[in-house]
Amino acid sequence: MMAKTLNVGMVGYGFMARAHSNAWGKVSQFFDTGYRPALKAIAARNGEKAKAFAQMWGYEGVESDWRRLIERKDIDVIDICTPNDSHAEIAIAAAEAGKMVTCEKPLARSAAEGLPMVQAVEKAGVPNMVWYNYRRVPAVTLAKKLIDEGRLGKIFHYRAKFLQDWTISADVPQGGTGTWRLDASVAGSGVTGDLLAHCIDTAMWLNGGIETVTGATETFVKQRKHATTGEVAPVKIDDASMFLSRFKNGSLGMFEATRYARGHKALYTLEINGEKASIFWDLHDLHRLQWFDHKDEGQLRGWRSIHITDGDHPYMSHWWVPGLQIGYEHTFIHQAADFIEGLGSGKAAAPTFRDALATEYVTDAVLKSAASKQWESVKG
Amino acid sequence: MMAKTLNVGMVGYGFMARAHSNAWGKVSQFFDTGYRPALKAIAARNGEKAKAFAQMWGYEGVESDWRRLIERKDIDVIDICTPNDSHAEIAIAAAEAGKMVTCEKPLARSAAEGLPMVQAVEKAGVPNMVWYNYRRVPAVTLAKKLIDEGRLGKIFHYRAKFLQDWTISADVPQGGTGTWRLDASVAGSGVTGDLLAHCIDTAMWLNGGIETVTGATETFVKQRKHATTGEVAPVKIDDASMFLSRFKNGSLGMFEATRYARGHKALYTLEINGEKASIFWDLHDLHRLQWFDHKDEGQLRGWRSIHITDGDHPYMSHWWVPGLQIGYEHTFIHQAADFIEGLGSGKAAAPTFRDALATEYVTDAVLKSAASKQWESVKG
Amino acid sequence: MMAKTLNVGMVGYGFMARAHSNAWGKVSQFFDTGYRPALKAIAARNGEKAKAFAQMWGYEGVESDWRRLIERKDIDVIDICTPNDSHAEIAIAAAEAGKMVTCEKPLARSAAEGLPMVQAVEKAGVPNMVWYNYRRVPAVTLAKKLIDEGRLGKIFHYRAKFLQDWTISADVPQGGTGTWRLDASVAGSGVTGDLLAHCIDTAMWLNGGIETVTGATETFVKQRKHATTGEVAPVKIDDASMFLSRFKNGSLGMFEATRYARGHKALYTLEINGEKASIFWDLHDLHRLQWFDHKDEGQLRGWRSIHITDGDHPYMSHWWVPGLQIGYEHTFIHQAADFIEGLGSGKAAAPTFRDALATEYVTDAVLKSAASKQWESVKG
Amino acid sequence: MMAKTLNVGMVGYGFMARAHSNAWGKVSQFFDTGYRPALKAIAARNGEKAKAFAQMWGYEGVESDWRRLIERKDIDVIDICTPNDSHAEIAIAAAEAGKMVTCEKPLARSAAEGLPMVQAVEKAGVPNMVWYNYRRVPAVTLAKKLIDEGRLGKIFHYRAKFLQDWTISADVPQGGTGTWRLDASVAGSGVTGDLLAHCIDTAMWLNGGIETVTGATETFVKQRKHATTGEVAPVKIDDASMFLSRFKNGSLGMFEATRYARGHKALYTLEINGEKASIFWDLHDLHRLQWFDHKDEGQLRGWRSIHITDGDHPYMSHWWVPGLQIGYEHTFIHQAADFIEGLGSGKAAAPTFRDALATEYVTDAVLKSAASKQWESVKG
Repeated sequence: MMAKTLNVGMVGYGFMARAHSNAWGKVSQFFDTGYRPALKAIAARNGEKAKAFAQMWGYEGVESDWRRLIERKDIDVIDICTPNDSHAEIAIAAAEAGKMVTCEKPLARSAAEGLPMVQAVEKAGVPNMVWYNYRRVPAVTLAKKLIDEGRLGKIFHYRAKFLQDWTISADVPQGGTGTWRLDASVAGSGVTGDLLAHCIDTAMWLNGGIETVTGATETFVKQRKHATTGEVAPVKIDDASMFLSRFKNGSLGMFEATRYARGHKALYTLEINGEKASIFWDLHDLHRLQWFDHKDEGQLRGWRSIHITDGDHPYMSHWWVPGLQIGYEHTFIHQAADFIEGLGSGKAAAPTFRDALATEYVTDAVLKSAASKQWESVKG
Repeated sequence: MMAKTLNVGMVGYGFMARAHSNAWGKVSQFFDTGYRPALKAIAARNGEKAKAFAQMWGYEGVESDWRRLIERKDIDVIDICTPNDSHAEIAIAAAEAGKMVTCEKPLARSAAEGLPMVQAVEKAGVPNMVWYNYRRVPAVTLAKKLIDEGRLGKIFHYRAKFLQDWTISADVPQGGTGTWRLDASVAGSGVTGDLLAHCIDTAMWLNGGIETVTGATETFVKQRKHATTGEVAPVKIDDASMFLSRFKNGSLGMFEATRYARGHKALYTLEINGEKASIFWDLHDLHRLQWFDHKDEGQLRGWRSIHITDGDHPYMSHWWVPGLQIGYEHTFIHQAADFIEGLGSGKAAAPTFRDALATEYVTDAVLKSAASKQWESVKG
Repeated sequence: MMAKTLNVGMVGYGFMARAHSNAWGKVSQFFDTGYRPALKAIAARNGEKAKAFAQMWGYEGVESDWRRLIERKDIDVIDICTPNDSHAEIAIAAAEAGKMVTCEKPLARSAAEGLPMVQAVEKAGVPNMVWYNYRRVPAVTLAKKLIDEGRLGKIFHYRAKFLQDWTISADVPQGGTGTWRLDASVAGSGVTGDLLAHCIDTAMWLNGGIETVTGATETFVKQRKHATTGEVAPVKIDDASMFLSRFKNGSLGMFEATRYARGHKALYTLEINGEKASIFWDLHDLHRLQWFDHKDEGQLRGWRSIHITDGDHPYMSHWWVPGLQIGYEHTFIHQAADFIEGLGSGKAAAPTFRDALATEYVTDAVLKSAASKQWESVKG
Repeated sequence: MMAKTLNVGMVGYGFMARAHSNAWGKVSQFFDTGYRPALKAIAARNGEKAKAFAQMWGYEGVESDWRRLIERKDIDVIDICTPNDSHAEIAIAAAEAGKMVTCEKPLARSAAEGLPMVQAVEKAGVPNMVWYNYRRVPAVTLAKKLIDEGRLGKIFHYRAKFLQDWTISADVPQGGTGTWRLDASVAGSGVTGDLLAHCIDTAMWLNGGIETVTGATETFVKQRKHATTGEVAPVKIDDASMFLSRFKNGSLGMFEATRYARGHKALYTLEINGEKASIFWDLHDLHRLQWFDHKDEGQLRGWRSIHITDGDHPYMSHWWVPGLQIGYEHTFIHQAADFIEGLGSGKAAAPTFRDALATEYVTDAVLKSAASKQWESVKG
């Protein structure tokens, strides 16, 4: 069967643009999808860098303005890989132009900013998706399957944390390329919107909605030099964020994210304790799922470390042979594969913009609770 | 040097009495202390069981009432191993009789109940101690030493949890021998006073005082049969308890305890992230300390799993040779050794009753916050 | 700088051809090499499959005979990914035609077969390399660096094993696509040439030459059906192979490979114990290196689990950010990058054909020893 | 039921005498055995040290000569904890005097020396046992049970190693207290009789007899000062020893012991691969058993880390509660419990002297093979 072409227009050329470009470029070699992505063009203000990026990744052309990319007839999907403060404007314009839109997470800097994005893509009726890539770690996808099959029974506890240590030094600047995540005006928030958002997206996918939260945030380094202006200014993002929650299904949640956990680079962990079984996973060994099954024979019960590399594990029949692990970048390839498959099947790949908006309501509630020192209900 | 004799009078014959008796009996074979404990007598209402216990552990005699034990001239220390609801009465009476008093944790069912105990031992001027045994896991003691030496630098995060799964079944009764911990009138609270209390005691020892908390508790199984009366009654203890906190040193805390974490039997874990280094420890592998040191050479930085069995590790020169691990019961032997050493040196072994009262103030605040849904200040 | 083009001609379309094609295709997006590989053509007898493979991987054309591929003027490098029995013929012809040659491991079915290959490439003076990819796992490359810097001191022990379990069932056939590794006429030997060869290549790279060996092999399943003929025939390969050795540097070696280790899919492990430090690595968690350094402070000595994802780890500055792991396929990309870099620098990427011949001498000695029940000297 | 008394006479006061004394002293508090050991007397040449030891451990008396201990009517069992070179003389004399005899491992310095010991106890008809304590690690005992139940099916591979690093320094002396294990005249051999003997004893218990071996030994430090004479003399023990073997059941074995494995203190590991399941265990985490069961559902297969602390695990109902680990010393308590139980049941606790002699035949064969450079058959 002849695959149709899916023309991709990329906005941005940073870290995430690299991960996405790699995904669009590799997906057809490992997944027999109905569409074959063509890396059509990249839009960015810095022409030199955009050109170099385009050449390295095989984009046919470069546009100096994302508006022009959106105007082009030969582009099917706009992939947004810019900092958070431009997601809304680009996404809405793209949707209004009838383009499919995929957007790097988080959807926006707040639910208020994200809601019009959802409305725009839904009004336009265009396929849309947010790149919460960790749903597509095969171990996490397997966890979802096990939960949906009822193997954990009633859920009592959900725990997640995302620990990093890259901003401990007071010398890390805020703002600018590479450090815009420390600039509240660009990023919206600190670890809440960056890292906790990942934890929340996965949590609600696996364990359903979150009803109420009580949280606290802290900014350990109070002021930092701005990378572009050179000015020393108060830091307005949260360096650390934590919250307790109650899920709709009656289970309790504990969540934490920080960039001040010495020794951890990207340690996203999650654990779910159910009546019948428990699951643990962590990003530093993403190719393993820890599984405890109470129905195992008593004397032989123990946590199993499942090496998620067998052909009967999610996505893994597309890769190598049992025992040979994949890594971080593959999660994006899986997401691209699912997006494309969704185009054929008509069943949208999750999380859609609307799904991702639910996460915005939770991060909003966490930040509100941190300020109010009250339990807050999650809106939406 | 001839060791003096320390005559021990035990109250209770349950699980903890076994652990304590073992400690008093073994300590002189491994630690060159100034006093040699003599297992003098055990007091308990059930004469048959007390007699059997005395015979097995080598107690010279049995008393049917703890009051008589306290009256005896030949008893130096009263060791309280009864359920929580009798700690205060026995301890106060013992102190007033001029006995040294050691008491199984928690000190009492609340700070209000514990305060008179503290006042009694201090007024009497008798040596006193609460058996928060996990301070004497050699790995935890080493953690304390490292922190006190400033090796972690400024502390950002403290995390602790204590996970069990033994009450998931609705068939577990409340009340009675072995299950009195599910009876709020006897235990005071559920996991908060039982398991969280351990986490809090260690946390404040390692990281200083806790100022404010916001918590939540849950009782998953709403009613249970009472073991002695047979009556089905509402369960008044907390099955799960969690809280966020701020320490006096500016660090953030996350704490959790539950008996509904399938797959975990006694998984007490703690982690501390400092500017310069981090520490992790868990009770299921109590003989290891995980250590990350940022001053290690960059390319070789990693978490070290230190096998705490060398002669230069706390307490370990008293045991076997490097590589050979000790277990749970040894923590009590260490505590007995320190208590005895304190008698000689005049420097009381911690935690004293007053130290343990501080934990009561925190558990009180957690329970209050769970009810008020507010952040609460820790009294005391 | 404009990269030159390196025209690749692939022979074969099986598992290894996939891994190599992926490497040639990706290398320029992550490594700034002087040459940009162009996937020019693939040669294979089965035209349909070759065509499908070419289309999926972006090869411009297909040749039905590898001889025609070699004749083409527009091909720079011949990459041999066929079963072992055709390596020699293809490699020698390619070298004689002046092509660069890269060959999947093992070089040949024996040293006798491999020697003319070495002579051919050396006589022709063409760049050549054997794809012993595990040298390019960043953790293993780091191990090499640490050893070369003298950080382990005098070496006492080297241990390696490669454990799989995919042929335990007597229903697995011998011969044919996918199972030619069980057919001695095609594979040469069983696990000795397949898995032990990896262990030996790495071992000699890290620890120098092997002088003498004593080994034993076993064939647990004595006869199997042939996949193509359907005939049940004696199995002539070794299912398991193990040997003791003495290295030239005075250290002792223990090696083992098997396809009968239930629970292990591709568990290649290696450990080196030196006077000053020790190293452990395993393929199931290939992104970690275990490191023990005796010069660490006594009370804090422990095995470090180094997460090999930092920019200062070999190859890793080319990938993502700290904490995000890569996988199996990346080892081939690294090898392609080094091969290309070697073309520019004139310093050939190892292992060359001659390097790989050294491994053949060891596997020959192991098989000879298994038959003679004597210690055998390694030739070469 | 009234327990009878078992009067123990100890020979020696070193490390092993401590471990044994602890076992005799604790066993009745945790195991409801028919006999209650009484620590009657200890015999040793050094009167001061013996007296101190007796006082610490509660022995009633001291004898300056083991012969006098044997002559005493009030001693039931002679427990031999002296260096290897005196095992035979003491054991034979004790047996001839009609005493029960327990002997620290290895039985003797060679099978030739051990055989008369076996003959003596068997002729006298006295209960006898060798303290190969690792059989009584609960995880290892569970492994034995699982194998005997046929859960592993046909066995393909057995692997064991015992790694230490305490003699790497050339400054460690040979001979004398604490270092007699480096003096061949006292110890018989180096790691072969000391550490490999443990591996072999467990291996034959779990996997049956060993038929043939090929081995190699090495002495890395060629000469050392003698601790008592001060003379620098050639080292005659083996520092490292390794061998390949074939078991009677057709499985292959790999064994290794060394005192030159930097980073390992007492890392005894064993792994068994069967058709249906596999087992792994190591002494540094002795409270865990790793278990892989092929009949687990495909997508959920993984190595289980079983925390051997539940009441349904061997010996564990006698200790604490699930989740709380025991340590090294408990293995001796278990062995004492089994010895005593054997006195009541008439079924001797293994390994008997005869069982332990089988290990001597294997270590003899390994040393013979190391010298002959041939495969050697195991006698006996």
